[in-house]
Amino acid sequence: MGDYRKLWSDLGMDLEKHDKLCAVLPELYSSVYLTQENRPEGMNYFNFVVAEVHGLRIQELDEHKKDGGKVVGTFCVFVPDEVILAAKAISVGLCAGSQFWVEDGEKVLPRNLCPLIKAFMGAKVGGTCPYFNSCDMVIGETTCDGKKKAWEILEEYVPVHVMDLPQMKKSKDYKMWEDEIKIVIEKIEELTGNKVTVESLKEGIRIANAKRRALKRLYNFRKLKPSPISGLDALLISQIAFYDNPLRFTEMLKALCDELDERAKNLVPDNSKRLMITGTPMAVPNWKLHSIIEGLDAQIVVEETCTGTRYFENEVSEEGDTIEDLIKNLADRYLKINCACFTPNHGRIEDIIKYAKEYSVDGVIDANLSFCHTYAIEHRDVETGLKEKNIPVLQIETDYSSEDSGQIKTRVEALLEMI
Amino acid sequence: MGDYRKLWSDLGMDLEKHDKLCAVLPELYSSVYLTQENRPEGMNYFNFVVAEVHGLRIQELDEHKKDGGKVVGTFCVFVPDEVILAAKAISVGLCAGSQFWVEDGEKVLPRNLCPLIKAFMGAKVGGTCPYFNSCDMVIGETTCDGKKKAWEILEEYVPVHVMDLPQMKKSKDYKMWEDEIKIVIEKIEELTGNKVTVESLKEGIRIANAKRRALKRLYNFRKLKPSPISGLDALLISQIAFYDNPLRFTEMLKALCDELDERAKNLVPDNSKRLMITGTPMAVPNWKLHSIIEGLDAQIVVEETCTGTRYFENEVSEEGDTIEDLIKNLADRYLKINCACFTPNHGRIEDIIKYAKEYSVDGVIDANLSFCHTYAIEHRDVETGLKEKNIPVLQIETDYSSEDSGQIKTRVEALLEMI
Repeated sequence: MGDYRKLWSDLGMDLEKHDKLCAVLPELYSSVYLTQENRPEGMNYFNFVVAEVHGLRIQELDEHKKDGGKVVGTFCVFVPDEVILAAKAISVGLCAGSQFWVEDGEKVLPRNLCPLIKAFMGAKVGGTCPYFNSCDMVIGETTCDGKKKAWEILEEYVPVHVMDLPQMKKSKDYKMWEDEIKIVIEKIEELTGNKVTVESLKEGIRIANAKRRALKRLYNFRKLKPSPISGLDALLISQIAFYDNPLRFTEMLKALCDELDERAKNLVPDNSKRLMITGTPMAVPNWKLHSIIEGLDAQIVVEETCTGTRYFENEVSEEGDTIEDLIKNLADRYLKINCACFTPNHGRIEDIIKYAKEYSVDGVIDANLSFCHTYAIEHRDVETGLKEKNIPVLQIETDYSSEDSGQIKTRVEALLEMI
Repeated sequence: MGDYRKLWSDLGMDLEKHDKLCAVLPELYSSVYLTQENRPEGMNYFNFVVAEVHGLRIQELDEHKKDGGKVVGTFCVFVPDEVILAAKAISVGLCAGSQFWVEDGEKVLPRNLCPLIKAFMGAKVGGTCPYFNSCDMVIGETTCDGKKKAWEILEEYVPVHVMDLPQMKKSKDYKMWEDEIKIVIEKIEELTGNKVTVESLKEGIRIANAKRRALKRLYNFRKLKPSPISGLDALLISQIAFYDNPLRFTEMLKALCDELDERAKNLVPDNSKRLMITGTPMAVPNWKLHSIIEGLDAQIVVEETCTGTRYFENEVSEEGDTIEDLIKNLADRYLKINCACFTPNHGRIEDIIKYAKEYSVDGVIDANLSFCHTYAIEHRDVETGLKEKNIPVLQIETDYSSEDSGQIKTRVEALLEMI
């Protein structure tokens, strides 16, 4: 990585504290990722992106800002990237996946809270995330009590606009979500000075759909036995999708998939167990569960999470001649996401059972971040649905610390022995 | 208490398990309440209500049901009692405040959840609450993630209708809440077979307002130095307000207030510290904090909670000639409640500061049930607001168990020494 200290300093970061983060990340990445055998060549691009995670991409954001462009931070798959793209702004997914940030987050938030929320808050409060410090605005949402109330505190540090996501999926909720998309369009137009037009919104939809299609193509390879790509690598690609340049990302992912096409012709059968992960998102650099599980005789072949299928399934229709038509298309697509924030949320159980079949899984791990009430309570439904189909399921509730890694390993081993 | 075993048995309760609850409650009540000195005579009615909590009132519900009437359970101050009254149904507030029910609740819910939710679920799952078993329908709401998802499980045991409470207070949210009130009116009309008319809804509003006014009058006595009624007694009265016959309750409370009028003429000044409780609700029989605090040299003079001011402040206007007018009045009044479920929720901090002055408090205890994210995160705002006014504040997060009682006592003692 080049020397970005001036850039970081100009962003108002705490360089000394940030150095500590920079000191541990490469080692973690190297031990988790670079030790994998026989990785596709196409993963080199993603290795490079991680190596430059706080460097080159931040420089790109900086250049965009110097040209008068704006950067918008998001934390959730419900925030429509299409709108941000249409206004010529750059969207960066800010979900924070490291224990490093938790301590600073706990300075302003209760300890009994999901590590993801504490981490993103800590990243901002401590001034150790150059993405966060590049943001002109953050778009939050009301997907859970923790985030809903955390925005109130975050607003002391950066302008925040909160999208009010419906809690149900009645017909009036679709209308409500359309209204919220209209409001966020106005907000982004105001921020950027750029008008969102039918043409620019269609272009945004095309870019986002192309990214979704590329991810879907990647996931389709994972249906093969064995998958020609590890769960760890697929997770990394999904994580990078949130903050990389979307056009470049899609091209590089297509190139990787072309390579996987070749690999798929010469698959060597093995006996490793095929697992699905379902539950809460895994933000960079949260590779904890994947690295434990794939260190055993198992492969993760699908994630029914926000850093998995929920991010890319279902495209937005490009049909329509007015902004209203396109907003309706956006609302329709986004409300197809089956997040535990909705009540009821039967669609998620149906998704899980469908994926279990499509990806031929031997078992499911329902993995939730600590103190995430919605997913924790919904576990009962997940378990009931899977048991009816005779699919073994293991619930793991964990945070970003490594204290419980040994215990998790033992529990996963027990699951693997059973199936 | 009379013999209600046949009644309980007909309600499908678990008599053996319920006996265990019946065995501990009178002792708890006696040690917490009946040891208070110089209580007003008017408290005898409320003693009687507690003594008959699972008896006489349940028999009244039973008689109402035998006459073709319906019983509707609620869990939150946002559910409009006026509508239930208008349809000639009986509303019972089901908030469950005992550790006794938690164990059964944890059979279907995660442990890392607020004790109130685990308790109400346990009361139903274990068949140990005759109120719950008398309910023809429960009206839930989306005030927090825990309850929102718990309704999905509760629905396996009793019909549940969920009111979708807005998460903000923008003008469109008022409209949304009016729509939700319309929907609940239809649901209740369907359940009872009784039409909600302008006249019956006005009558419901009058009954609910009269109860609010009586509670407000009670609270006004607490502004006196010293208050002629203990915090423990005021809390009990608020708790009973949720399930007693509203007309009788209001009359008996008025009689108590008449007695307090007399007492107010001969107050003997004392030096006990005056405290406000703010935070989450305290459901029957959760008297834990009040009994610890008033066992020290302190008096609780106001609760800014759902079992306090949030329950009775602001009346519903009776003005209007149509159902729509009255629904608008209901929405306006209910959305004045400053619950931490809203974002932002500055009104609550303003309320707390206003009450601190009106009730001349020396300090505030921000008391939240464990794992309640919204109130826990909002504590920072509460603390900041109070510190600006130089009002000492102590945060206590606790559940229904008695394990931390000693620690709480020590912390409250430290607060009292400081002020």
